[in-house]
Amino acid sequence: MPGQPPSPRTEIRRKPQRAHYDRATIEAIVDAALICQVAFSHEGSVHCLPTACWRSGDHLYIHGAANSRMAAALLAGECCVCIAHLDGLVLARSAFHHSMNFRSVAIYGRFEEVTDPAVKAAEFAAFVEHVSPGRAARVRPPSAAETAGTRLLRLPLREAAAKIRTDGVIDAEDDLALPVWAGVVPLGLRAGCPEPDAGCAGMEQPGLPACVAG
Amino acid sequence: MPGQPPSPRTEIRRKPQRAHYDRATIEAIVDAALICQVAFSHEGSVHCLPTACWRSGDHLYIHGAANSRMAAALLAGECCVCIAHLDGLVLARSAFHHSMNFRSVAIYGRFEEVTDPAVKAAEFAAFVEHVSPGRAARVRPPSAAETAGTRLLRLPLREAAAKIRTDGVIDAEDDLALPVWAGVVPLGLRAGCPEPDAGCAGMEQPGLPACVAG
Repeated sequence: MPGQPPSPRTEIRRKPQRAHYDRATIEAIVDAALICQVAFSHEGSVHCLPTACWRSGDHLYIHGAANSRMAAALLAGECCVCIAHLDGLVLARSAFHHSMNFRSVAIYGRFEEVTDPAVKAAEFAAFVEHVSPGRAARVRPPSAAETAGTRLLRLPLREAAAKIRTDGVIDAEDDLALPVWAGVVPLGLRAGCPEPDAGCAGMEQPGLPACVAG
Repeated sequence: MPGQPPSPRTEIRRKPQRAHYDRATIEAIVDAALICQVAFSHEGSVHCLPTACWRSGDHLYIHGAANSRMAAALLAGECCVCIAHLDGLVLARSAFHHSMNFRSVAIYGRFEEVTDPAVKAAEFAAFVEHVSPGRAARVRPPSAAETAGTRLLRLPLREAAAKIRTDGVIDAEDDLALPVWAGVVPLGLRAGCPEPDAGCAGMEQPGLPACVAG
């Protein structure tokens, strides 16, 4: 268990040998994400919504429209952000020992809004770079009105925990002779053939995020 | 907008043209998921955890260990389950018009526990079939003790909403002549080379779930 849980609510008690609390592990899982799930309470209900995300320094960033209800709700209270990468199906010889390989992170805290136009512009460029490396310098940057009309929110990575399973099959001794394939089927997000917009068929292909195989 | 929101909290107000409330659309998105995110409130905090899921009939099912804290918390109150499939990067000529294609579902309600051993055994077989079609009949089925030691929870799909984006690039007229590639990079979960456990190298390969390309 690298690191220590930063708070009681981040402590992983189920299979604690899979818990990681060190910053490098948490950042690597966040950096491999294009979307996260944001869970928060609003008007008496818990909500959970997917949204695009990226990391800069010590924060996870998300963005939204100026009139976003989620942004307003997030600024009003605490939330939990979850990122989960499904890395493989673990197929055992017994139904009971089937499992999945994954890397996940839960981050607790309260989002704060970033309003400085220069910081916002830099972060939006970082977001474009995260989605397609090399692209921020080639596209038209946001106008002042576009920047002003987009809210930028960030959540510190301070109160976070990661959980990782990378093992192979763990079958019971008595099942090892059963005549059925057992093993791991690796899974990952892959890019298909890029579909160019009108007029772009001959142009240089865009960069792909590091977490996506071409 | 196919269908009507089943409750005020499921109504999608941001880009309502992307909302779908009909059961067939919701079921298709759930059926394409191997994991979901479960968001719930517990001891004053909102939590969000990934867990494996499958659908049978009108319910989404999850499972957990007999001593699972999450299972106990879920049975005690309402939750929101979120499934999100990231289907593509939408790369525009302007930073502002970048987007993502996706299919997502949010399901609200309260999980109930299924305790009948025969029903549990049938659902665990359905789970194995979901993860690897054709497999349930070939692996050792759960023993009575394994079935009893695993909790089975289900959530009705009644109060649910889907949101889908499948469009291409939507750039402003003034940006269309910019000399940068624009278009959609499709994304999807793909299987890599299966990694056989000891003694399984020559055996017939396992079936892959329909949501995973080989």
